[in-house]
Amino acid sequence: MLVPCRMSGAAALLPLALLAQAALSSAYVTSPSSLSGIRTNFASSVSKSRRAYPLSWARALRATATKPDQKSEGLGFDSHKAVDKAPDTLCRDGTANTAMRAKFEKMLREAQDYICKSVENVDGGAKFQTDAWTREGGGGGISRVLTGGKVWEKAGCNLSVVYGSMPSEALQAANDRLKFGATDRAKGYAPGERVPFFACGLSSVMHPKNPHCPTMHFNYRYFETEGGVWWFGGGTDITPAYLNVDDMKYFHGTYKEVCDKHDPEFYPKFKKWADEYFFIKHRGETRGLGGIFFDDLNDRDPEKIFEFAKECAMNVPKAYLPIVEAHKNDPFTQKEKEWQLMRRGRYVEFNLVYDRGTIFGLKTGGRIESILMSLPETARWEYDHRPEPGSKEAEVLEVFRNPRDWV
Amino acid sequence: MLVPCRMSGAAALLPLALLAQAALSSAYVTSPSSLSGIRTNFASSVSKSRRAYPLSWARALRATATKPDQKSEGLGFDSHKAVDKAPDTLCRDGTANTAMRAKFEKMLREAQDYICKSVENVDGGAKFQTDAWTREGGGGGISRVLTGGKVWEKAGCNLSVVYGSMPSEALQAANDRLKFGATDRAKGYAPGERVPFFACGLSSVMHPKNPHCPTMHFNYRYFETEGGVWWFGGGTDITPAYLNVDDMKYFHGTYKEVCDKHDPEFYPKFKKWADEYFFIKHRGETRGLGGIFFDDLNDRDPEKIFEFAKECAMNVPKAYLPIVEAHKNDPFTQKEKEWQLMRRGRYVEFNLVYDRGTIFGLKTGGRIESILMSLPETARWEYDHRPEPGSKEAEVLEVFRNPRDWV
Repeated sequence: MLVPCRMSGAAALLPLALLAQAALSSAYVTSPSSLSGIRTNFASSVSKSRRAYPLSWARALRATATKPDQKSEGLGFDSHKAVDKAPDTLCRDGTANTAMRAKFEKMLREAQDYICKSVENVDGGAKFQTDAWTREGGGGGISRVLTGGKVWEKAGCNLSVVYGSMPSEALQAANDRLKFGATDRAKGYAPGERVPFFACGLSSVMHPKNPHCPTMHFNYRYFETEGGVWWFGGGTDITPAYLNVDDMKYFHGTYKEVCDKHDPEFYPKFKKWADEYFFIKHRGETRGLGGIFFDDLNDRDPEKIFEFAKECAMNVPKAYLPIVEAHKNDPFTQKEKEWQLMRRGRYVEFNLVYDRGTIFGLKTGGRIESILMSLPETARWEYDHRPEPGSKEAEVLEVFRNPRDWV
Repeated sequence: MLVPCRMSGAAALLPLALLAQAALSSAYVTSPSSLSGIRTNFASSVSKSRRAYPLSWARALRATATKPDQKSEGLGFDSHKAVDKAPDTLCRDGTANTAMRAKFEKMLREAQDYICKSVENVDGGAKFQTDAWTREGGGGGISRVLTGGKVWEKAGCNLSVVYGSMPSEALQAANDRLKFGATDRAKGYAPGERVPFFACGLSSVMHPKNPHCPTMHFNYRYFETEGGVWWFGGGTDITPAYLNVDDMKYFHGTYKEVCDKHDPEFYPKFKKWADEYFFIKHRGETRGLGGIFFDDLNDRDPEKIFEFAKECAMNVPKAYLPIVEAHKNDPFTQKEKEWQLMRRGRYVEFNLVYDRGTIFGLKTGGRIESILMSLPETARWEYDHRPEPGSKEAEVLEVFRNPRDWV
């Protein structure tokens, strides 16, 4: 049976919304790939020469990536098909560099299971619904969505594996990357040429009901181009409606601890990057109270970055859930609920106006429900709303306007 | 006392959101201009030669338009100041072409009064709050906002008069204009050069509470550049959550009648233009059920177009209010309310993702509350919501996907 896929959604960051592109239209699928034939030539594949890749992969990518009926700005994905159960891996076999791809996918699937179970335990009501799908030329996804929980209004956690291609300019575009040391992602390709790539990521947004429980977003991903460029990206950030300094110290402190184990420069750099990325320019406010954000990370042994990304993902429950647990039964007023909904309006503004992945996804024909799964169930706009001076709302707004150091 | 202005807001179309730019920051203001010294040399000023304009205007525009501290993509407006009562005209005196400007402003102010009074009568509860402001170099606005009415959740109707300047490319940019016969708005200016302009418009969005009462938007405006190019633009369109064929025949029929009196080609052309403009590409749906939309209208005697625009604006109450009156007490279910809120989510998506004026306004530092006044008070996103086949929701969705001819 052909049913629409549920996939990467919750994509608040470029690469993950790109993953969401994977779900374009329904079609038939060949038998899923298996892990047999994995080669472990990671070292040669990171030599950044297109020739370092076996022709088989290059040919397969080109074959799936440049169908004439696809829009030029599209991602050149194959069509997809829902499956009852995802195969053990969604990566193609017999291609270069499969070791890191399969290893990253496996880690993300474990993280997805662990995070969703942890969230269900705290919710104590609804369960995540799972949808899996595969794609003809390789790749696919496992989408998990919880709605109408006791604690969460809407929570999604989506895994995607994508083989696609992008115009080289689109792959490069991301102004703030340059500030933080960008990779030449389109290396080996001329302007206008399409760059075949592999991507695997886990993306999530969770919107709780209680206005004293923050929304949380995370996203961890691994990319490779056929040109031999690879990088890791990701981050976890928190969006409360009210300020609780201890909670923020705890959340940021947890990620600082994770970062420091890998590189003392990570936390300050990635904390700043999150503050700059999640900024709603037209409001002069950050979307929330930050966290960490990184992209183009490829300056050291990929195994080391893998371990860092793994620890970041696996620490989502530790960093987030105790805060929700502590506040899920806090009493709240109608006014507090409305303030939360106005802050969700800001979330919508950020995601629809600035978020690179969302915009790109919407304009290039991705699967809408996946891309927009990051939007809250409800949002509110009051004309010219100004919190009363000295109020709790004014207090947190001040911090959205002037990001603070927490640890 | 300096208070933040309330102005053009509700700007769902480029030129009106440009007007919203007028409100950038607070400052002091000189005494308002008066109508003395109006010249009536419209004929010469439409000769489309920059030289046809008295140097006084050109000099004044350049002086206010190119302050070095303004961002290059900005509109080059002066700062503004709230006033207790708007002066009789917000147009500057002693400049060319003032006759049409002052006449158009006067007509819009009458339309604003008439429309707001008519809406208050139907609401029977809340009244519009009025805020007026002027601007140092000329121009200003009168903003009227009704919130928490018996019938309307949020309704705004904003007049703006703007003297500003824009990069020539920005003035030209609007893909769909080309399809419908665009004007060379930047005539006489090189790429990259700023084009000083005058604009006057009335913009409105009204969101009723009852899901059986449609949202309505309209916007009528007059533009001139210092290069001597002038044009009219505008339109009225309707966004119901449920299909009522008779209501749509009535709404479209009213505007067809208005159009036909002026040119039998207007209604079919402007109806199609509305269907194309108010299209949410990523959803494959129109925002609502259309109406009329036109821009760059300057192919005949400006007095004739003035009369057309006037009749369009003055017919807003006749075209819209009987529909609201008929349904304002309709019973509705929670499910119907939620569907309305989901359609408002689509309204938000259109305005934040596609609306040229909104995007431009947000990215160039306009007054946010004015630009985003068009957003509904409440909106909703349900993951992968699909109306049941045969339901009322499925019925109207089908029409959003396949625009229909109503008359």
